[in-house]
Amino acid sequence: MLKRFLVPEKDQVMVSEADARAATEAIFVKMGLPEDDAVLATDVLITSDLRGCESHGVSNMLRNYVAMYGANRMNPNPDWKIERESAVSATIDGDQGVGIQIGPKAMQIAIDKAEQTGMGAVGVRNCGHFGMLAYYSLMAIKHDMIGVAMVSAGGNLQVPLWGTEPIFGTQPIAWGAPSEKMPPFVFDVATTQVAANKLMLTRRIGSQLEPAWITDLEGNPVMNPVDSPDYGGFFMLPFGGTRENGGHKGYGFATIVDMMAGILSGNGPGYIAGGLKHSQFVMAIKVDAFLDVAKFKTDMDTLLDKLANMKPIPEQERVYYAGLIEHEEVAKRKAEGIPYHREVVEWFHKAGSDLDLTFNLPT
Amino acid sequence: MLKRFLVPEKDQVMVSEADARAATEAIFVKMGLPEDDAVLATDVLITSDLRGCESHGVSNMLRNYVAMYGANRMNPNPDWKIERESAVSATIDGDQGVGIQIGPKAMQIAIDKAEQTGMGAVGVRNCGHFGMLAYYSLMAIKHDMIGVAMVSAGGNLQVPLWGTEPIFGTQPIAWGAPSEKMPPFVFDVATTQVAANKLMLTRRIGSQLEPAWITDLEGNPVMNPVDSPDYGGFFMLPFGGTRENGGHKGYGFATIVDMMAGILSGNGPGYIAGGLKHSQFVMAIKVDAFLDVAKFKTDMDTLLDKLANMKPIPEQERVYYAGLIEHEEVAKRKAEGIPYHREVVEWFHKAGSDLDLTFNLPT
Repeated sequence: MLKRFLVPEKDQVMVSEADARAATEAIFVKMGLPEDDAVLATDVLITSDLRGCESHGVSNMLRNYVAMYGANRMNPNPDWKIERESAVSATIDGDQGVGIQIGPKAMQIAIDKAEQTGMGAVGVRNCGHFGMLAYYSLMAIKHDMIGVAMVSAGGNLQVPLWGTEPIFGTQPIAWGAPSEKMPPFVFDVATTQVAANKLMLTRRIGSQLEPAWITDLEGNPVMNPVDSPDYGGFFMLPFGGTRENGGHKGYGFATIVDMMAGILSGNGPGYIAGGLKHSQFVMAIKVDAFLDVAKFKTDMDTLLDKLANMKPIPEQERVYYAGLIEHEEVAKRKAEGIPYHREVVEWFHKAGSDLDLTFNLPT
Repeated sequence: MLKRFLVPEKDQVMVSEADARAATEAIFVKMGLPEDDAVLATDVLITSDLRGCESHGVSNMLRNYVAMYGANRMNPNPDWKIERESAVSATIDGDQGVGIQIGPKAMQIAIDKAEQTGMGAVGVRNCGHFGMLAYYSLMAIKHDMIGVAMVSAGGNLQVPLWGTEPIFGTQPIAWGAPSEKMPPFVFDVATTQVAANKLMLTRRIGSQLEPAWITDLEGNPVMNPVDSPDYGGFFMLPFGGTRENGGHKGYGFATIVDMMAGILSGNGPGYIAGGLKHSQFVMAIKVDAFLDVAKFKTDMDTLLDKLANMKPIPEQERVYYAGLIEHEEVAKRKAEGIPYHREVVEWFHKAGSDLDLTFNLPT
């Protein structure tokens, strides 16, 4: 993430991975999730936090989930079903479970099919939030597969290039592949200029938005730096921002996501399905179906090593590739703990008090 | 395409589709391609020209092919082979044939496999130029399939974000899907800010490059408008351009292409394979494996109609989606002819004279 999204040091409270998991699992169980599902959903959130992807970890998301379960807008114990299936594919109705509880099962089905046939893909409709998509790519990578994930999450956020109506969500895409010695390539981006959750993070940490990140409510690009408005006070631009900088490319990928996750799963276009019915597409591609795995991983190492060790331009310290800095962050945070904003830890204690739970977290 | 890439009216010479095909096929046959392959390769080029994608049609490419056949740097009659195969996958060695001769066969294999199993993907290595990738997506769309294509075409052009070495080509990606009444969504973009061929087009028509489209030979972004330098005088930036505008996203997709087309096919990273050994990944996904085709197409119509008929921001006349304007251009050009630059028609006559061929083209 850009530095502006990091929690300032003075506001950091270090929490161990184990304590963060225990507190999060306890909350999910209290919400009514089956024990196994609580562990799975927690794993998606804590994996985000360990990778330094706070925007998709417990900080922003857990309180939303709690509010939605409280309002009966998500189903903690969904009776999810495979509606259509082939040797390479499946389509799942998630019965309004949270995506981080159904999505990992969908990717496991895709992986199992790819293990048998060479490729597997699963569409999931009718779910809540799917969390950080890198999680699903990482699942496939462990099986020497390429892992792809996309999520269509309602409309009301992103305008098409030159358009005035926000008919897309942030429409994220993840794509990862295994390597041997180098940390794996794991790409995970919103097709907007920036993930919506990250706009809210800027508010917590007091930084501004860049030109061409958002539009006003008539779709006009905001071309000067501004404080992030509240949800409902802006729309988002596709990545690239302007036509000349590739805004039509961000817009095109946003459309692809609506088509692959939304329409192909039967959920329909996101702007019609609405904010409570997210949909997902996950795909696993077995490397061995195309090429010897050893050759693939060696070539990935060659490419990734070239990127990570390339001389940067004078203004920058280093060239990164997707997944590199996150991999380094995991090692650091597993050792030192996760640096949550103190406000997040305060929320845990408040929620614990409301839910009659006690957490082993700093006060 | 942006207006700056169109041939100015005063320089246009209208050529009928039939005459353009006949001239192009005759040249390919003269180069030594089997008759069927000449027809196939011509179809890829003329489809580009009909869609208004001159950058990938005969204007720039045909003379390159002729030069390469003349220098024995491409094999007109390749003994291409499937090296590895499963029910869903194949890996092809193209024996240095031109990509527009092998690629359509690879996509047909993917389509045939998807017809049987639900998904099919083919990696192709060791080929020349693959032409406009939208062509391959359009092939799948005709079979009610989603069609994906990617090409890794050597290094030496695109630098990673913040990097100083051009280790990627333009790394294009295409993604298309069928619809019922609306023209199909067909997305086809370079992962650079702009396709390299289009930079050369700006020279023919005398327009300038935008800030953050290219870098100097040390990788420093050129942030002022400039005339396009010669090949060899610049590197290209990933789409987005700067980090704040999503340059890391363009860079990530460029890496994905090198991994899916280059590494997975066995061709290796593009910067090592070099400019003569292009590689391709094509994938066909049968809609029916996931959802009723009628429901999918109806939902695609709903989404595409919403996009095409959305009120634009005041500065723009219309909201487009990928493939819409190209579809309209095909109808126009099939009726009125293809508006080639007079210099291109002159080249045809010169080439005909050198190759002892006569063309039915305007003089």
